[in-house]
This record gives sequence, C-alpha cells and structure tokens, in this order.
Amino acid sequence: MNVTLAIDAMGGDFGVQSTVPAAVACLQKNPDLNLIMVGDESVLRGLLADALRDFSARLTIRHASQVVGMDEPPQKALKNKKDSSMRVAINLVRDGEADACVSAGNTGALMATARFVLKMAPGVERPAIISTLPSTFGHTHMLDLGGNVDSSAEHLYQFAVMGEEVVRAVEGVERPKVGLLNIGEEDIKGNEQVKAAARLLENSNLNYIGFVEGDSINAGHVKVDLIVADGFVGNVALKSIEGAAKMISQKLKAEFSRNIFTRLAALAAFPALKAFKDSIDPRLYNGATFIGLNGLVIKSHGGADALAFETAVHLAELQAGQGVIRKIGDKIATALLEQQVLA
Amino acid sequence: MNVTLAIDAMGGDFGVQSTVPAAVACLQKNPDLNLIMVGDESVLRGLLADALRDFSARLTIRHASQVVGMDEPPQKALKNKKDSSMRVAINLVRDGEADACVSAGNTGALMATARFVLKMAPGVERPAIISTLPSTFGHTHMLDLGGNVDSSAEHLYQFAVMGEEVVRAVEGVERPKVGLLNIGEEDIKGNEQVKAAARLLENSNLNYIGFVEGDSINAGHVKVDLIVADGFVGNVALKSIEGAAKMISQKLKAEFSRNIFTRLAALAAFPALKAFKDSIDPRLYNGATFIGLNGLVIKSHGGADALAFETAVHLAELQAGQGVIRKIGDKIATALLEQQVLA
Repeated sequence: MNVTLAIDAMGGDFGVQSTVPAAVACLQKNPDLNLIMVGDESVLRGLLADALRDFSARLTIRHASQVVGMDEPPQKALKNKKDSSMRVAINLVRDGEADACVSAGNTGALMATARFVLKMAPGVERPAIISTLPSTFGHTHMLDLGGNVDSSAEHLYQFAVMGEEVVRAVEGVERPKVGLLNIGEEDIKGNEQVKAAARLLENSNLNYIGFVEGDSINAGHVKVDLIVADGFVGNVALKSIEGAAKMISQKLKAEFSRNIFTRLAALAAFPALKAFKDSIDPRLYNGATFIGLNGLVIKSHGGADALAFETAVHLAELQAGQGVIRKIGDKIATALLEQQVLA
Repeated sequence: MNVTLAIDAMGGDFGVQSTVPAAVACLQKNPDLNLIMVGDESVLRGLLADALRDFSARLTIRHASQVVGMDEPPQKALKNKKDSSMRVAINLVRDGEADACVSAGNTGALMATARFVLKMAPGVERPAIISTLPSTFGHTHMLDLGGNVDSSAEHLYQFAVMGEEVVRAVEGVERPKVGLLNIGEEDIKGNEQVKAAARLLENSNLNYIGFVEGDSINAGHVKVDLIVADGFVGNVALKSIEGAAKMISQKLKAEFSRNIFTRLAALAAFPALKAFKDSIDPRLYNGATFIGLNGLVIKSHGGADALAFETAVHLAELQAGQGVIRKIGDKIATALLEQQVLA
C-alpha cells in the first residue's frame, strides 16, 4: 500500500538529529513509503543529500521557515507560527498531499494546530489521543490519554468506536477486546459516566468485555486490546506507569552498581538484563495518535531519538495504509445512526 | 507510647495463618503494644497458647462467632454478620477498648462496617483511604485510593488536611509536601474540581507544592510526601502501578529463565536481584488507612502473608501512637473555621 507521510523534521528536543536518520531508515525498510520532510530547506537538503539521490522518487523536502518551541503556548504557536514545520506538515494532510503527519513537537501546540487546521470529523464530539503500551499479553491500546477531561458517557463510547479502528489497523485483530477503565469489575462500582458508558458499550456492536482495573493496562488477568478512559484518568494512569517503570529501573541499576561483586554479576547477567531492558524499551512504544479529526496526526515523544521516532513513523504508515480515518468516519456515522434508532 | 490494637484475626485470604504469626512478631518487637485478637476463641486459644503465656499482660482474645467472606457484599455483611471478627474488632475501637483495628477482610465490607459503627468525624464530608508507595525519594503517601468518586474541590481539600496528619505520624515529617494529582503542572491544566482545589490549597496552611503528574507517585522530578486525588483517579493510578510492577517482574524473570546461560547468570546475580526484589517488596508497603471516621481502621491487603500483615499492624501502631484521629479532628475543625472566615 502506497503511503505518503509529512514529517515535521524540526520538532522535538532533538529535531533533525532524530527525524532525519529515522526518515532514511523508514525509506529503506518500506519501498511503498513516500516522505515529505518539512523544515528548513537548506539544512534538510544538506543532511539528506545522499537520501535524496537514493530515494529520489520517494523523498521530497518542503520548506518551512519557523519552528514551534517545545514550551511555546498553543495559542501563540497558532497565531505567530503559521509557517512552522509543524503547521506546514499538518497543512499537507489537510490538502491531501500527505496521508498523515508525524511530529515530535509540543503536544499542546500540535493538538491545537491539528484541531484548527483539520477540524473535527463529522459526528465526532471530541478528538482523543490513543497510544500503545506493553502488557503481559502483548500490547494494550489506551485512550483517551489527555485530550479531554470530564468526558461524558457518549464521549467514552465514541472513544471506543474510534479506538477500535486504530487497534484493528495496528494489530490486525478483527474484533479487538474493549474494556472500560474502572475502580472495580462489579457493576455497582464507578462514577455515573462510566456506568452509563458501560450500558452504551453493552448495547453496541463492539467486542466489549466489561470493566477493567488499572492493573489490566500492563498485566490484567484477562487480555484486553483497547482500554477506554476519560483523558484525565488515562493520562494519570499512563504517567503513573512511566513513573513506576522509571523507579524500578533505577532500583535495579542501583543494586547492580552496589559493589565490585554486584558489578561482576551484572557483567555475567548482561545478556539477560539487556534483553529485559529491550523488552520494556519505551522507544518501541513511541507514538500517540490524535483521532477524531479530518486527518491523521501522530505525536512522537518530544525526547525521541532516531529509533523512537522511527517507531512513530511506522505507526503512521500502518494507520494511513489501513485508511483508519475513513474507517473511523464510517463507524461514527453508523454509531450515530444506531443511537438515533435506539433513542 | 502504650497502644492497644484490635486485630481481625479471621480476615483475609489466609486468616489466622497470617494474623497469628504477625501478632506474635509485633508483640515481641514492641513492648508497649497490647493486642486484642478477635475471632474464634477456641482456634485462637490453641494457636496462641505460647504467646498468651509469654505476653500474658498484653495479649487477650475476644470471641467472635462469624467471619465476613472475601466476596460477601458489604450490605449483607452489615446485616447478617453482626458478630463477625471484623465487626467486633471495629466495635472495640468505638467502645474505646482499642486505639485502632487492623483487618485483611474485604474492603467494601470493612469500609461499610467502619462507617456504620464509627460514624464520620465531625465536619468531615467524606472518609478516604490513604496508603504509602515507594518512590525514588523514599515514600509517597496518596489518597483517596477508592473511597470516593466525583470528589469536589472541598473534598480534595479535606483529603489533604487529613492526609497531612497521617504522613506526619508515619514519617515524622513536620511539614509534609502536598501535591495535587493533575495531568500537567501548568495552572491551565486539569478539570474544574482540581483547579478549584488548587486555589483552596494555595490559601491554606498546608505545605502545598502545586500540581504533580502521575509519574511523581514513584519517580517525580521533585519530592512530594502526599499526593491528593479523587478516589477514582487515585485507585486507577495505584492499580496501574501494581500492573506495571507485575509485568516488569515477570519480564525480568522470563529473561533470566530463558536458557542455561541466563539461569547461571541469575545465580551469579542472585544477591543483587534479591536486594532489588526486596527494595520493591509490596509487603513492606502493606496497609491502607481509612480516615475521616471516629476511629482508626487499617485495611491490610487481602492476600497478605504474615510479614505483610505485620507491616499493616506496625502502621496502626504508629498512627494510633501519634493520636492521628484526634489530630485530624482538630485540623478539620480549624480548617472549617478558616473556610468560614474566608467565605
């Protein structure tokens, strides 16, 4: 499947240091991929000289004179940075020149610009952010991760409908198992929004498996492919997991650095420790998708290195190749019809 | 400080198997501790024969003919189990015979029974559940962990006031640093309740440090002693961390079990791996405190073994010894006065 992606080449903490090698690696791996690198043309032309020759038919550069700062307030970026690499990359999606864009730029500015330029998809009440996490069963996808707070039952239901298409595209699972994040698995648990959302999901065509608790994100007693939550709750869960992983890694490292004996043991244990580290490498889970807009936008972690950025580009390839945006549009239209019939 | 605790000896997945050895260990360690073991008298008398002789002045048994099941609905337990070990232990707190009670029984029944028997403390709008988690800085205390959903700004403020006393008692920190769990550190982030609670905390006498994100629970960039959240959010965060720790441990174990070489490496690395495991041992963090009632109730994890249960008993000793309930009462009264003055 031929896919064209617009890359915000200047975004993120490392800018071209990450985006350029990632772009080249992706072009090498996928012969059906076309990339438009957006940013300072003279810089990019210098860095990409070899690649422009090797992939002449699949790599182009689009000049953008500005860069959105990592701490720049969204409204300022929107007003003053109309020729930023971020904005121009999103414009390419709006104009149909690219199937999706990928940026490691600041989340607030990216979300605000994406909403402003692409607009909400018909019938969608709120856009959401979805990402993938490792689990003992493989992967779990979760949304919303911070796009919204105070989500209503209907919002949660729409998140489930949209998220299902993303999981189907990324995992190739026909009927992803959908769970609703709650503080217990019994029907009486939770707040009113979650209880009402459960009723909507039970009556839907989704493969809804019921309430799941926070531990199900990484290591539940049942497999769940998609976990639906309000953006406040989803964001706190995601960050809590990041903090736990960071603390555990630090403690493990501290114990192996304690003295000469533990350092020797670390040497002996190196292959196992390396394999362990790789198995939970957050770079292999980089990339969050903004869904619910008229176009696909993938947000990479700001601190992404080339490998992490490559993961985000690959995520965009998968979803754009599967036509996720069009499929979400169809599903939302059907879901709205169903709700009208039920109402 | 002389402290008397009532122990629900029959509660939890392992009942007397955990509670009896834990009780004996605690009596050995703390000469100022008095215990009332509540449960089947003949069973307890048999198991505690030696201890009753060794600690004759400090150990007594109180008979209770019933046990609350781990899956028993709270309302059923409340109605049908008036002579349960859980209920009788809480009654001892109400009647002033014990300074606190500790139970590994089912959370719902314990909370419902504690609320029914002890009643809410004057001025407290909602009781909350607080517990301790490991962090890169030492410990973090967090509440509410599931007592409440849809907490208002005033509820969150009260949680902070009550939680501060617990942290002071347990950690011996005079001015614990209080953070409010949010999805960003900027003022504009979050939902209305959190923003309004921030204003109340800024104007309070608490050592309020501002918003903290989920990763601050275990590994933030600043030290925080007490994290305040709505019970839905706090419970999801806690469970998410549990799931992350479980997954990471499983993956670490899997890598060291992969083949003969990694198994040999695990042998060499045993001291470091053991020290690491101990450093995040959840048994050393067992015990959640119900606060906001006219009496102190400590909930142990249902699956607690003797060591874990001992941790929960120790937590009760500390808090009862410090007169946490009385101090919370004073603080709530002052806080209410302050609010009236401000209003």
